[in-house]
Amino acid sequence: MQNFEFQNGTAIIFGKNQEQVVGKQTAAFGKKVLLHYGGGSIKKSGLYDRVVSSLKAEGIEVFELGGVKPNPRVDLVREGVSICKKEGIEFILAVGGGSVIDSAKAIAAGAYYDGDVWDYFIGKAEVDLCVPIGVVLTIPAAGSETSGGTVVTNEDGLYKRSTGHQNMRPQFAILNPELTYTLPAYQTACGLTDMMAHILERYFTNEQHVDLTDRLCEGTLRSIIANAHTVIDDPTNYDARAEIMWAGTIAHNDLLGTGRIGDWASHEIEHEISGIYDIAHGAGLAIIFPAWMKYVYKHNVNRFAQYANRVWDVEIDLNDLEKTALAGIKKTEDFFHSIGMPIRLTEVDIDRTHFDEMAKKATDRCPLGNFVKLEANDVHKIYELALD
Amino acid sequence: MQNFEFQNGTAIIFGKNQEQVVGKQTAAFGKKVLLHYGGGSIKKSGLYDRVVSSLKAEGIEVFELGGVKPNPRVDLVREGVSICKKEGIEFILAVGGGSVIDSAKAIAAGAYYDGDVWDYFIGKAEVDLCVPIGVVLTIPAAGSETSGGTVVTNEDGLYKRSTGHQNMRPQFAILNPELTYTLPAYQTACGLTDMMAHILERYFTNEQHVDLTDRLCEGTLRSIIANAHTVIDDPTNYDARAEIMWAGTIAHNDLLGTGRIGDWASHEIEHEISGIYDIAHGAGLAIIFPAWMKYVYKHNVNRFAQYANRVWDVEIDLNDLEKTALAGIKKTEDFFHSIGMPIRLTEVDIDRTHFDEMAKKATDRCPLGNFVKLEANDVHKIYELALD
Repeated sequence: MQNFEFQNGTAIIFGKNQEQVVGKQTAAFGKKVLLHYGGGSIKKSGLYDRVVSSLKAEGIEVFELGGVKPNPRVDLVREGVSICKKEGIEFILAVGGGSVIDSAKAIAAGAYYDGDVWDYFIGKAEVDLCVPIGVVLTIPAAGSETSGGTVVTNEDGLYKRSTGHQNMRPQFAILNPELTYTLPAYQTACGLTDMMAHILERYFTNEQHVDLTDRLCEGTLRSIIANAHTVIDDPTNYDARAEIMWAGTIAHNDLLGTGRIGDWASHEIEHEISGIYDIAHGAGLAIIFPAWMKYVYKHNVNRFAQYANRVWDVEIDLNDLEKTALAGIKKTEDFFHSIGMPIRLTEVDIDRTHFDEMAKKATDRCPLGNFVKLEANDVHKIYELALD
Repeated sequence: MQNFEFQNGTAIIFGKNQEQVVGKQTAAFGKKVLLHYGGGSIKKSGLYDRVVSSLKAEGIEVFELGGVKPNPRVDLVREGVSICKKEGIEFILAVGGGSVIDSAKAIAAGAYYDGDVWDYFIGKAEVDLCVPIGVVLTIPAAGSETSGGTVVTNEDGLYKRSTGHQNMRPQFAILNPELTYTLPAYQTACGLTDMMAHILERYFTNEQHVDLTDRLCEGTLRSIIANAHTVIDDPTNYDARAEIMWAGTIAHNDLLGTGRIGDWASHEIEHEISGIYDIAHGAGLAIIFPAWMKYVYKHNVNRFAQYANRVWDVEIDLNDLEKTALAGIKKTEDFFHSIGMPIRLTEVDIDRTHFDEMAKKATDRCPLGNFVKLEANDVHKIYELALD
């Protein structure tokens, strides 16, 4: 086990009707608040009205910035940064999913920085002081509600880049599973894939002695798998929605990665796809992760066999561990397909056109991944494996 | 799943040599520090010297209070409270195991209270403001290093009582598994039992839809079981000591109990034993928990069968789930015995003498437990089941 530091102080407020306390929670941090959200869905559902009236009941002055898109854009972040600077915003409340939260985090970091906020994403500056953030989560997927990371897309060159800092962690996250009832099946499945990918990125490590976190990863994966078809087939099933919502947070709150170095190549490889093609991040992961697994599993067949056995109940064949390992990969792929995810690029009409460019951009700063280090030619081969 | 709030902001600093940063960590909170510890073991091992010089290097003024015993006494807590009040202590550093940390928490709460600190333990006052605390952990067991709870014994009547508050959670906890190398096998086993008991208390719940936390509980239990014999047989095995140390914290940091109501009767039933007889808390739990299980398992045979199957690999006999459940209880008991724990009161020379008194004291404020509510006569029967 590696030495590590772990601190995640985000207050989780979980359950039915919990969005009622958003005004009170927010008021503890400030009276000038930027309310950040996406499109019209929170207005249609009535959540917007409930949040605004809870804020106003506490005498909070609300500034608004809607319009966050999936794969949030740096242009809107810049707009948020100017509002913060101009109005002296004391707190940012993100109401939505991972894109809204990531956008809010970038605004929070940019608000105290004199340069351009994109500097944080290209290593030109390091995040330090941030405006505090709160979250009302509507999409369980990205785990951004308690993480210190953010991913933003720059349309000028179609770069999708990440940065992170402990100060970006939200102060509180309100998680009401009922708010996820209206998520369409496809978006629900994208979320399931995203949270599973967060665990898989941590699971495939070269650390040898990580028994406890292996088991926490496996348990969380099993719970997602066990509840996945219920939330898709029976979208207003509170119990299953609750398991999934809490699992999505735990998948990415850093506990499961303690003492180990995760891989994270698949996320970067996927970012190039959704950066160019604007497909859902979860769908991209369902395509890339199995391809990555096929490309790297020989690096540690035992770990892949353990994964197959403990997560997917594949019987261990001690005479042919490779068979066990491959069966686990096949189960992963079949599962993604079973919840309605694409598992090949051709299914989402992506061909080889940009493979060269994407492989180069994915590795432009360094080789990708930690489980196996990948250069541009490796990434290219993974795109080929993912093709059809 | 129940609605819940969860926040655990304790900074975990885990791994080899991490006690080196104790001065720097402490200095962030104040310059007048009460160093609280137990007997001579931290002096013999050199840890005391390393901690003191790390504190002094940061210009910290160190006040000392040693002498914490297992089952920490309210008399010493009162002494600590006076030092805090007299010297204007800004931070309490607990170096030791659960007893030292619990004692430090009680001091921390008492320091800002005009009445007697025992009031907090008998419901006469509620904990509010606390002096901040830090921990250098030497015994993985109680999980007190990130919990908001404390258990203290009042020798005047031999009462062992608990209280808790979010403000009692330590600000940081330094966990170096090397510091646990010198723990004798018996004490190591007591710690293993204690952490398993913390999980079991949460596991046996009447909540129906707690799939994720069930699996996190099961995974943590499996990891403790898988590493238990290694830490006893090979006490300087870093990898196993690290798994156990991190598991002990996770067992009691409240994550595993989110969304569910735990039982906690066995802890209270045990407190009466170790309150009177001064046996190790872990040893008392190894005796009481199997007896409690035998007394209550019929309340939810399915849950006990799931426990037997997922934690102990007992094959599920669908024609006789009770057999499966009982096999899991037997495995629990056998495991405790295999690591050197007593599993009957007679093994530690306790007879029926105080059964009446203990059963009455355990239930003097209310029935015990949540999985099954227990009155004095139930508790008496559990002592009988635990006898021989």
